Amino acid sequence: MRVLGIDPGTSKAGYGLVEQSSDRISLVVSGEITSRPNDPISKKLKEIFLKVQELIETCRPDAIAVENSFLHKNVQTAVRLGQARGAVLIAAEILSVSVMEYTPREVKLALVGYGGAEKEQVQWMLKKILGEGLVPDSHHAVDAIAVAICHLHSAKINGLIQAGMR
Amino acid sequence: MRVLGIDPGTSKAGYGLVEQSSDRISLVVSGEITSRPNDPISKKLKEIFLKVQELIETCRPDAIAVENSFLHKNVQTAVRLGQARGAVLIAAEILSVSVMEYTPREVKLALVGYGGAEKEQVQWMLKKILGEGLVPDSHHAVDAIAVAICHLHSAKINGLIQAGMR
Repeated sequence: MRVLGIDPGTSKAGYGLVEQSSDRISLVVSGEITSRPNDPISKKLKEIFLKVQELIETCRPDAIAVENSFLHKNVQTAVRLGQARGAVLIAAEILSVSVMEYTPREVKLALVGYGGAEKEQVQWMLKKILGEGLVPDSHHAVDAIAVAICHLHSAKINGLIQAGMR
Repeated sequence: MRVLGIDPGTSKAGYGLVEQSSDRISLVVSGEITSRPNDPISKKLKEIFLKVQELIETCRPDAIAVENSFLHKNVQTAVRLGQARGAVLIAAEILSVSVMEYTPREVKLALVGYGGAEKEQVQWMLKKILGEGLVPDSHHAVDAIAVAICHLHSAKINGLIQAGMR
């Protein structure tokens, strides 16, 4: 199973594509979608939209997982994040890939077992999962990888529940 | 000059394309982009994105004007509106049409001469401008036409200012 994780943001967005085969999770590709600070917002959104489409077409993920961090934001920030999320959702819908959203708390809970975990604990766990030296420096890419792994965990748990109900 | 006005919203979005030739403003097309209440948000956003692209390709507007009504909204509503606005901005950017945004206050000021005007006053003025019986019933379409006309006024004033500065 391949999951493309996205940490949406208009100044910088992170992405990370992870693959699970048997019990091993590996990182396929990760990076940042950056734009120049003075670029108009429409250009920044187009870049996110085109990059997500390109990642779907080249990496063929089974699902997309997006970090949803709208809580405790002010209205202006919420609008900006909403726009970036919209760019991801449209790209995914056009190419028929389903999108799941997870809050930062859910991501931390899935990775570290504690929703209030610090960023360093998440990073430490990612190194354990992916291997030392394979976790990128960009914290946007790290957040994107984390939400993708959160989705893998969640899909596994759902699979176990469904198997138990049969 | 042709302007495509958009009143963005994910449950219903309005559009209205107006054309100014000499001193006459006429309505070319207007309507609503609707979706089923239970449709996922990604499907609703894709429909806005595709409809705006279709309108740009068939009607060739010189500019797009969007009503920006984020003030006094809560965070959840702001996120939804941000997503819908993102869909319009990406469609416009891909097809190289510039987008201008106006607040409801600016729209009322341009149309009625008073930023605190009631909806009925705006509707009355639209009937005067476009002709009785030519204003649609949908208030989303009405808002879209109003913001398009607001942009025509604003472009005209900017033109006069620039002409005066020469």
